[in-house]
Amino acid sequence: MEKIKYSFLYDYSEGAHPRIMEALKETNYVQQAGYGEDAYCVEAAELIKKRLKSNHVDIHFVSGGTQANYIVISSALRPYESVVSAATGHINVHETGAVEAKGHKINSIVTEDGKLKTEEIQKVLTFHTDEHMVLPKMVYISNSTEIGTVYTRKELSDLHQFCVEKGLYLFMDGARLGSALMSSESDLQFEDLVQLTDAFYIGGTKNGALIGEAIVIVNDALKQKFRFYIKQNGGLLAKGRLLGLQFRELFRDELYLENATHANLMAKKMAKAIEELGFGFLGKPSSNQIFPIFPNLVIEELSRQYSFYIWSKVDENHSSVRLVTSWATDLKVIDEFISDLHDIYRRRKHELLHRI
Amino acid sequence: MEKIKYSFLYDYSEGAHPRIMEALKETNYVQQAGYGEDAYCVEAAELIKKRLKSNHVDIHFVSGGTQANYIVISSALRPYESVVSAATGHINVHETGAVEAKGHKINSIVTEDGKLKTEEIQKVLTFHTDEHMVLPKMVYISNSTEIGTVYTRKELSDLHQFCVEKGLYLFMDGARLGSALMSSESDLQFEDLVQLTDAFYIGGTKNGALIGEAIVIVNDALKQKFRFYIKQNGGLLAKGRLLGLQFRELFRDELYLENATHANLMAKKMAKAIEELGFGFLGKPSSNQIFPIFPNLVIEELSRQYSFYIWSKVDENHSSVRLVTSWATDLKVIDEFISDLHDIYRRRKHELLHRI
Amino acid sequence: MEKIKYSFLYDYSEGAHPRIMEALKETNYVQQAGYGEDAYCVEAAELIKKRLKSNHVDIHFVSGGTQANYIVISSALRPYESVVSAATGHINVHETGAVEAKGHKINSIVTEDGKLKTEEIQKVLTFHTDEHMVLPKMVYISNSTEIGTVYTRKELSDLHQFCVEKGLYLFMDGARLGSALMSSESDLQFEDLVQLTDAFYIGGTKNGALIGEAIVIVNDALKQKFRFYIKQNGGLLAKGRLLGLQFRELFRDELYLENATHANLMAKKMAKAIEELGFGFLGKPSSNQIFPIFPNLVIEELSRQYSFYIWSKVDENHSSVRLVTSWATDLKVIDEFISDLHDIYRRRKHELLHRI
Amino acid sequence: MEKIKYSFLYDYSEGAHPRIMEALKETNYVQQAGYGEDAYCVEAAELIKKRLKSNHVDIHFVSGGTQANYIVISSALRPYESVVSAATGHINVHETGAVEAKGHKINSIVTEDGKLKTEEIQKVLTFHTDEHMVLPKMVYISNSTEIGTVYTRKELSDLHQFCVEKGLYLFMDGARLGSALMSSESDLQFEDLVQLTDAFYIGGTKNGALIGEAIVIVNDALKQKFRFYIKQNGGLLAKGRLLGLQFRELFRDELYLENATHANLMAKKMAKAIEELGFGFLGKPSSNQIFPIFPNLVIEELSRQYSFYIWSKVDENHSSVRLVTSWATDLKVIDEFISDLHDIYRRRKHELLHRI
Repeated sequence: MEKIKYSFLYDYSEGAHPRIMEALKETNYVQQAGYGEDAYCVEAAELIKKRLKSNHVDIHFVSGGTQANYIVISSALRPYESVVSAATGHINVHETGAVEAKGHKINSIVTEDGKLKTEEIQKVLTFHTDEHMVLPKMVYISNSTEIGTVYTRKELSDLHQFCVEKGLYLFMDGARLGSALMSSESDLQFEDLVQLTDAFYIGGTKNGALIGEAIVIVNDALKQKFRFYIKQNGGLLAKGRLLGLQFRELFRDELYLENATHANLMAKKMAKAIEELGFGFLGKPSSNQIFPIFPNLVIEELSRQYSFYIWSKVDENHSSVRLVTSWATDLKVIDEFISDLHDIYRRRKHELLHRI
Repeated sequence: MEKIKYSFLYDYSEGAHPRIMEALKETNYVQQAGYGEDAYCVEAAELIKKRLKSNHVDIHFVSGGTQANYIVISSALRPYESVVSAATGHINVHETGAVEAKGHKINSIVTEDGKLKTEEIQKVLTFHTDEHMVLPKMVYISNSTEIGTVYTRKELSDLHQFCVEKGLYLFMDGARLGSALMSSESDLQFEDLVQLTDAFYIGGTKNGALIGEAIVIVNDALKQKFRFYIKQNGGLLAKGRLLGLQFRELFRDELYLENATHANLMAKKMAKAIEELGFGFLGKPSSNQIFPIFPNLVIEELSRQYSFYIWSKVDENHSSVRLVTSWATDLKVIDEFISDLHDIYRRRKHELLHRI
Repeated sequence: MEKIKYSFLYDYSEGAHPRIMEALKETNYVQQAGYGEDAYCVEAAELIKKRLKSNHVDIHFVSGGTQANYIVISSALRPYESVVSAATGHINVHETGAVEAKGHKINSIVTEDGKLKTEEIQKVLTFHTDEHMVLPKMVYISNSTEIGTVYTRKELSDLHQFCVEKGLYLFMDGARLGSALMSSESDLQFEDLVQLTDAFYIGGTKNGALIGEAIVIVNDALKQKFRFYIKQNGGLLAKGRLLGLQFRELFRDELYLENATHANLMAKKMAKAIEELGFGFLGKPSSNQIFPIFPNLVIEELSRQYSFYIWSKVDENHSSVRLVTSWATDLKVIDEFISDLHDIYRRRKHELLHRI
Repeated sequence: MEKIKYSFLYDYSEGAHPRIMEALKETNYVQQAGYGEDAYCVEAAELIKKRLKSNHVDIHFVSGGTQANYIVISSALRPYESVVSAATGHINVHETGAVEAKGHKINSIVTEDGKLKTEEIQKVLTFHTDEHMVLPKMVYISNSTEIGTVYTRKELSDLHQFCVEKGLYLFMDGARLGSALMSSESDLQFEDLVQLTDAFYIGGTKNGALIGEAIVIVNDALKQKFRFYIKQNGGLLAKGRLLGLQFRELFRDELYLENATHANLMAKKMAKAIEELGFGFLGKPSSNQIFPIFPNLVIEELSRQYSFYIWSKVDENHSSVRLVTSWATDLKVIDEFISDLHDIYRRRKHELLHRI
């Protein structure tokens, strides 16, 4: 990666927000109880509850998203129950079959934008009629989705209403929840999640923490003995303080959402510049992941200076790429990227016009 | 815990060794690849291999001991195979059935000192004769054990020899490996482990790291696709750099063993003072966990100033307690504890003589 | 079911072929070893090997198809490995998530005719690139398929060749293998299966046995400790003699294939008559399951006299139904059905012409 | 087994009771619904309910004991919950880890007679204190036990009372329930089981059926969606009629208990003769399994004419053997065995006196 100016590969390329680093240093020698029973976990849970405006949720901290997903899902479901997910859902693609490894089928639904709709879920329910088939019992959604889209309050409300009627749990994977909540495409608020889901998690790793996700359990039916599940699945850290302290810092004020706002802003700035050059996108840029469609020769040039994923082939001469920004992405980096892109555009304009 | 002077509850009450904190700070803004493919993980793995004097081992970093244990065990065993463990083994008691949750029976053996002996393992093998029973395939040992004892080179060598002959894997849980290796009761060396086990892990959490264990796979048969297992079990951290960097620091020089040496020394000093007052122990003090047997009235007094576990009832008037020291335990704390114990002894001497 | 003349619901509505009943009676008081180690199981295995013209296969008897499927699949796969199946595959739809309950993801492929093609499997392989995803390792096919279609020798050979090249196991669910082999649409022979699969099972329950399927393991890699898997999964019957004896009878001569031939013939006769009346089919009638498309008013009338499944809605006025014949379906029943259908057609002809 | 006169290896050496064979023959061509929804299953369930004097139990038929055990246990327990069993319990020894394969730890208790007592269970409960350990939630007992002993009404009542108080389920493995109920050592009645357990199963395979066990679920909490569990675990037979019909026959009158009475009587006769010759037993002969202790030279001679298991070494010159009788054991066989034993005794008397 010698000559690479910046990596837009993911939103977890750097360490942690400096305030978190500072808090870790300050508390380093304070003796604390183990396994998430320390003062920081307790305080962080209180701060999160306050932010969610609810005292009736349970908060648990775990170390990663895959862990959060399969623990919540497998603790909620009986062995014969399944979970409904978009085909692009992280649990369906990028968790090495962790949900199935815990014994549960995922009923996947092909979507256009990574978001589930009630009509599609209804088809799954209709198809599953008796004991020869699994029984769908939970709906899993990611917000923001794996392709950068976000749910509006109305969309989530519709899903929730549907789930209540059908006796389904609604679980939101919030690996990038901050970015979703701060998206200009969504009017969803933090406190809405308590009304509109049965459980969700607040992603720390991708929004400024070194490590850690905060699972929020809303539905009482899912709260029971949850620490047993965490422990059995290797998620109960001896130094749980590490998780608690970071979330204490992120929720002491609005740092969590500020980090996300910054990431979104950086992505938006890039998206605007890209759009102005006449390039399109795979889905409307909505959060801190954008998926511009570039001519392959542009991608080739860009990849000499920047790291990013080539997402999918669009046609013979074009591909979509994924650009991810984070709390740590400096405005200067974005300006330079835009300038470099303009530069490439200028230099190769002739070829580009020819080919497109 | 208001008036508590110090907690001897565990060796993970504090944060991390200051050198680790410093390294985290220094590297905070360096962009790195995710999922353990960062430069720090690579470097840490190299340093560990060098320390083990072997290039033929695979190194993987995970976040905790339970995770390390069940991933190694379940990846090594076929569904019908079982693992042999001391009844006191961490996997058999304190991991909420994580090994069974992955589908494997634990054949437990009652021991006197937490250590397995070949004769006892042979009895388990002899008992299991056909396909109506599980097939024992792995031996799990902890070093140091859950009750503070350690394996000598000869003891481990005997176990290993036996396992080779019987076609069993030998896996060592090294949550407190540093303390075991630096014990004055053991002549075992770091590099011996490559000769005498099929896999082991080097515990970081209990020896100065914020979080993290380094799994070392020696036997080629256990190496295959190991990252798939880690990922499926929620152990592949997006910011794997956090794990790698800490082990880089611990193995850059002898910091890992120095931390353990300090912890052992503090425990030894306490043990000596306790012994001099005429109190006995549950097992010979050998590592950073000691289990003195005190009259209950001494325990009562001590517990007003110090935190520790009451381990087991010995008789009507006596119980054993567990005192754990760590890299972070200050010599002054030990001196004060000894002085407080003397003080209690003096004040209550009359009663003590009366009762015992 | 009072006035119902005959049930075409399934091919397991009756008991067993009379020769099987006779053999059970004759051997009833002979003492035999338990758990499939009886003389009948041994003899049946030998007869099957002879029929398959191979001494290098292992034969195991279990009680049902779901059991056969999940035992073969879960014993072959490592925890992170998945199985590729048609979306309509029995394991993917009608086994209550048994494969997932054993920890494995099914990568399902939407097909037109229930049969897998190499191009589609290749897409699945191409998509799965690293340890963040499951690793496809087995291809599962049903023959005949769940919608009555069958594989030709060429089609199976292509699949097999592909699987060998890609390092995949090929497993055939033979719940209705007899019917597939005797289909006039296929040139596949019993002995081909040893060359062209890694494992398959010969369905007894749906072809004249009271109960029982014979698993045939071809690939040595899948043979190891197979009885452990059967026992752990509740498939090792104390009176395994019941399974062995039936397969001994079915393979003493060509009874197994004769049963299937009869079933196919009955289905063919019905199909021909249906076709002659101008009705179409969902897929070409090929085995003992046919899926005619009838006007709903015909279905309504038929269902007063016969039992069968309404398979799928075709349009507002038409649906497909599933008619299944078996070794036990009498020719007279078929004649009567055809006559009843003609009768309905005559009586409602006017309406039918009007509506279609 | 050429010269063997009779096998006392198990109670499943023969086929089925002639009345069952007759019923199978008579109903062979009757078309029935699949998957346990046939008229015979319905009728058998009604007959069993009548015999148990309860309309509030659910009855399900499965094909074998291991299947019955792990389905009941795994459907009742949440992933972190464990089942308490005697160390000799069938689930703990002879089911290839089937319970663990479903994810649950067995807390085993060493007993003298294969029977659990409340004091011992209490110790297990006391030991398990928090989320670092599994949570014992079910007690598993076998009646008769694996070593032929039986529970009295008082003993079962005490266990049940204890379980109610502690919030534990009580599950009885009734593979040999008939023999237990008809034991002269027990006053337990069929109808007591509804009052004193949460679930149990009535073993058919070892008491005159070709195959099959009837699971009786008493506790409403364990009834929910039970057919999903059966199906997912490969226990829902397409021709469930085979199971239903047999239990219909066994419970049409008192055939089930008559079979057991006969088996017990045959065992008792043997036990009396053995005792009169001065030989002792491993546990008091109570059911259809007896465990006499013979000099090895007697065992050697006997094994030339009879098949049986050598159970355990008692001392250098003596071993215990297991002799099992069944519904099919003819009185003549018993008489001949006794006569042969007398004969051996007479011939080898001198040596026997010398050695003992």
